[in-house]
Amino acid sequence: MTPADDPLYSQRGVSASKEEVHAAVGRLPQPLFHRAFCRLYPDVLTGNDDWAMLVHGDGAGTKAVLAYLWWKETGDLSVWKGIARDVVVMNTDDVFCTGAPQHLAFCSLINRNRHLVPGAVLNALVEGTLEAAADLEPFGVHLHYMGGETADVGDAVRTLTVDGTLTCRLPRNRIVKNEIRAGDLIVGFASFGQTTYERAYNSGIGCNGLTSARHDVLQPLYGQRYPETVDPATDPRLIYCGSHLLSDTYANHTVAALLLSPTRTYVPLLREIHENYIDSVSGIIHCTGGGQTKVLHFIDQLHVVKDNLFPLPPVFELIRRESRSSWKELYAVYNMGHRLEVYCTEPIAEKLIALAAAFRIEARIIGRVNSSERPRLTLTIEQETVDY
Amino acid sequence: MTPADDPLYSQRGVSASKEEVHAAVGRLPQPLFHRAFCRLYPDVLTGNDDWAMLVHGDGAGTKAVLAYLWWKETGDLSVWKGIARDVVVMNTDDVFCTGAPQHLAFCSLINRNRHLVPGAVLNALVEGTLEAAADLEPFGVHLHYMGGETADVGDAVRTLTVDGTLTCRLPRNRIVKNEIRAGDLIVGFASFGQTTYERAYNSGIGCNGLTSARHDVLQPLYGQRYPETVDPATDPRLIYCGSHLLSDTYANHTVAALLLSPTRTYVPLLREIHENYIDSVSGIIHCTGGGQTKVLHFIDQLHVVKDNLFPLPPVFELIRRESRSSWKELYAVYNMGHRLEVYCTEPIAEKLIALAAAFRIEARIIGRVNSSERPRLTLTIEQETVDY
Repeated sequence: MTPADDPLYSQRGVSASKEEVHAAVGRLPQPLFHRAFCRLYPDVLTGNDDWAMLVHGDGAGTKAVLAYLWWKETGDLSVWKGIARDVVVMNTDDVFCTGAPQHLAFCSLINRNRHLVPGAVLNALVEGTLEAAADLEPFGVHLHYMGGETADVGDAVRTLTVDGTLTCRLPRNRIVKNEIRAGDLIVGFASFGQTTYERAYNSGIGCNGLTSARHDVLQPLYGQRYPETVDPATDPRLIYCGSHLLSDTYANHTVAALLLSPTRTYVPLLREIHENYIDSVSGIIHCTGGGQTKVLHFIDQLHVVKDNLFPLPPVFELIRRESRSSWKELYAVYNMGHRLEVYCTEPIAEKLIALAAAFRIEARIIGRVNSSERPRLTLTIEQETVDY
Repeated sequence: MTPADDPLYSQRGVSASKEEVHAAVGRLPQPLFHRAFCRLYPDVLTGNDDWAMLVHGDGAGTKAVLAYLWWKETGDLSVWKGIARDVVVMNTDDVFCTGAPQHLAFCSLINRNRHLVPGAVLNALVEGTLEAAADLEPFGVHLHYMGGETADVGDAVRTLTVDGTLTCRLPRNRIVKNEIRAGDLIVGFASFGQTTYERAYNSGIGCNGLTSARHDVLQPLYGQRYPETVDPATDPRLIYCGSHLLSDTYANHTVAALLLSPTRTYVPLLREIHENYIDSVSGIIHCTGGGQTKVLHFIDQLHVVKDNLFPLPPVFELIRRESRSSWKELYAVYNMGHRLEVYCTEPIAEKLIALAAAFRIEARIIGRVNSSERPRLTLTIEQETVDY
């Protein structure tokens, strides 16, 4: 049991470590490279042994529920475009940890309660997907939106779920297999700030931990106004138990803007890394579910030490204040400052940091890898040391 | 507004005509062939202009909610294998209306309420998917299960949703473009019975209309025992307002078996049709959402007349008795006896019927196509004539 699966966290019906899910996935056919970030299989679509392929699935999770709150309060449909972008980015950024396809085929899956979610929301989701795809074009990445399914299933979903899948082919000799080594440095790339290709400040929240963030930060009135955003099996003390309104200001941003900031894509940067440094990086990790502990799925006899983490961006400061959670729990749920980390040698680390600067993505050496008898992770947060 | 969108039907938060969805999908890039059953796009994965590709998405809809009831009542996990099969077949059979790929890449997307749906259910869903794939192997169809996502999102879903996507490539000169013509005959292929490749009787229910079927057929006690299977926004008079228990017997089958019968795949038959008759069929329609009215999406100046429909299989007889719905509504929601229809000339029709007989799939000429000023559909049901 990881700290994220402690009884309190579990009572909200979520799991950061997803042990049950990993067990079920273990029944699937073995992928080509057991530590590559995405599951790669032989390219059965062409039968060409020089290539691999993947079909990846991911979604916006309960960030869609938060968007629902905002949209109900304000009528602002554009929030759904952000959710569509979240779904695209949660998929592309997983895929680009593994390789750098030029062409990706996207399919969306929406399950909605038609009593509550009208066609205008579906339109905004489609438009947001097309916009997110268009924003990748200048970087030579072509995301083709090929369709999907929208089901009206009010007996199954309270409001809606928004998911998508990405299919692509990758040359087998251009894959990052995640062979992390003792001696590697770890470069972290900020999830917050404003890159050259973003139109506004990004809080860095991403798409993980939103069930907790929503309940911990927001006031009880949201539960009263929108009971359809709450699992009635959850302990009432854990429901919307924060002190904020969505319209409150925190660190010069509204709480809504902080929590609903669309997930930053690292694709422009990752494309350059694959192009120029593929033979020099030993691992690329997308710190999504499991936050800063994600790397534990990709190592055996190593001790990952992260002792120079980013200062806490405001959104996570807000969540920490409101939730009063431990560092250990927070860093196992949220990215807390960087959603991408690359494992490499020192000279490469400096080059990657310079590369990121060109996109105005803050980057730094956040730690290093030592040898160990068992997989270990140690974070240094302020003066505290946290072990996983 | 189609009859399936009348206020009563809509109050359950479902829509058979899905006009809003079609409007949203209209914003996507235009597919290669505007009437092909699936959306085909240039094969961007290889750049080969002789090929097309598709990524298709579909799911089990609220049949998963019905499976949940059965599993809660009995503890029988195998019902989830049926749901997994439903998801596979809803995808494969759409795809095989368009072409006959040898290789398909499958990705699953599950959104669950972790309070209610344990890991054992996920395991059964994975196993059911692998079994459904294995059952296609003898027919030279290789469905590769490449992964997916399971999200714990109890604030968004009451119980669970189970969806999947299929990716494949098709040679452009082996596509059924659905160019239905006046003079075509329509061959219907039974959704019920037991084919040579099925292990048990199939009721023919498929995966559509399950919200209505569940509430119309089952007793109020299910709503009392399992409020998590009901959208509280639905008029209480429409919730579990039938007279049956899942364990009741109707026409020698339990009600559960009739309503939960896994969707029949027509892939073995469709593969043969593509192999031998591709140049002789003008259209292939999978009668899913919209039931017997599905063909209306694929015609312009034609009048489709179906005047020799299959006798009603028991499951639809049961639904009719319990719902007291009109023929017009029933045929626009359920397949009512055949889930596959092929448009072709008379000599070919006879050959297709013989081909189906080899698989023990009942088949018959159910109607024909006339010219018309606008798209029209007429069904003859018993002595009644129903126009759409």
